[in-house]
Amino acid sequence: MRILHHLPLSPQSRLVRLLLGEKRLPCELVFEKIWEKNEAFQALNPAGEVPVLVEDSGQIVPGASVIAEYLEDVYPETILMGRTIAERVEVRRLLDWFDRLFQDEVSVNLLGEKVEKRLFGVGQPDGNVLRIGYKNLRFHLDYIGYLAETRTWLAGPSLSAADFAAAAHLSALDFLGDINWAHAPSVRDWYARVKSRPCFRPLLADKISGFTPSAHYADLDF
Amino acid sequence: MRILHHLPLSPQSRLVRLLLGEKRLPCELVFEKIWEKNEAFQALNPAGEVPVLVEDSGQIVPGASVIAEYLEDVYPETILMGRTIAERVEVRRLLDWFDRLFQDEVSVNLLGEKVEKRLFGVGQPDGNVLRIGYKNLRFHLDYIGYLAETRTWLAGPSLSAADFAAAAHLSALDFLGDINWAHAPSVRDWYARVKSRPCFRPLLADKISGFTPSAHYADLDF
Repeated sequence: MRILHHLPLSPQSRLVRLLLGEKRLPCELVFEKIWEKNEAFQALNPAGEVPVLVEDSGQIVPGASVIAEYLEDVYPETILMGRTIAERVEVRRLLDWFDRLFQDEVSVNLLGEKVEKRLFGVGQPDGNVLRIGYKNLRFHLDYIGYLAETRTWLAGPSLSAADFAAAAHLSALDFLGDINWAHAPSVRDWYARVKSRPCFRPLLADKISGFTPSAHYADLDF
Repeated sequence: MRILHHLPLSPQSRLVRLLLGEKRLPCELVFEKIWEKNEAFQALNPAGEVPVLVEDSGQIVPGASVIAEYLEDVYPETILMGRTIAERVEVRRLLDWFDRLFQDEVSVNLLGEKVEKRLFGVGQPDGNVLRIGYKNLRFHLDYIGYLAETRTWLAGPSLSAADFAAAAHLSALDFLGDINWAHAPSVRDWYARVKSRPCFRPLLADKISGFTPSAHYADLDF
């Protein structure tokens, strides 16, 4: 069975779970304590990060963006990286946007402080860092809202990996109750559509030791 | 004529210049003062970053990793992203390594302090940040050296975008004189091979107002 080394609140791991689910590729999840820096995992991914996909063939694929491209190369039956050259550019632009900008400006500040610090055992969240994260989140919600209002899906006419990348980050923040949906109605409408995909169900059923999901986290009508 | 909006000491811009050169795709360079945040450029790339490629067709392609995939999709005559699935995974893993890890751990600390701060007019380099950058650089040179010693090229048997990504970062640092080649002989041997490619010549001839290259920067026998 295909194996995904992951962490439940890692947006990059969530993205890959959504891509695998949408492409109907079953996988077994392995909760990877990356902070223990064990050698077997470092050998799978010298960067020491989740997600890492290990195929039955033995092919090791480390990193969300690498896995997204790999899955499209090897399992192209469900297209998630765009159908035309222009769509592929836009899907990849947004994947990169969420992988670097949203990650550095929002997720590192909020998930890093609230989740990683607890998992890694390195102290309490820093209020100043959280404030920066919330401020940046508002800017990013405006941008996602702009995309959602002007297009059917974030990257254009088709559901794509860009939608799952955005939803992966937002779902982890929503688990923590960090998203004020009332202030971002067009993002909520788009997110409700992504959240209702069958591939999303396993994420909504996640039980994570030490963390309690927000009241509406698993609610499809939030 | 194809246009590349760039900055001469941006490793991401350098990577794209090398890819275009290796694929023999001519382009006109536009020096982009991203710190002025002008609206025309923000429209090309909402992230406000270089590089951005604009094709004669009007296709806009923002971001180095997006451009690398785009060039391989559209101009596959010279293969730089790997020939097999396993090679493609390894090339992309290393592109991601340099785009995120090397960038955040080394280039932000050294190029960010020495180059960006001067261009952006926001003060002097912080010695503590530089020290962190130099310490991380030693770790990364060890890793590049390990790859260079165990493989023909960094990602495997063929020259690939991974070599150009690594060389793009190292060449910008080498311009500043930040690389102690005597301490990294196997990296030096590999870099000498990349540096002697015809696509590298325009980078070695760069004249950059306000910055003087290290004595050996353009020397192929350093």
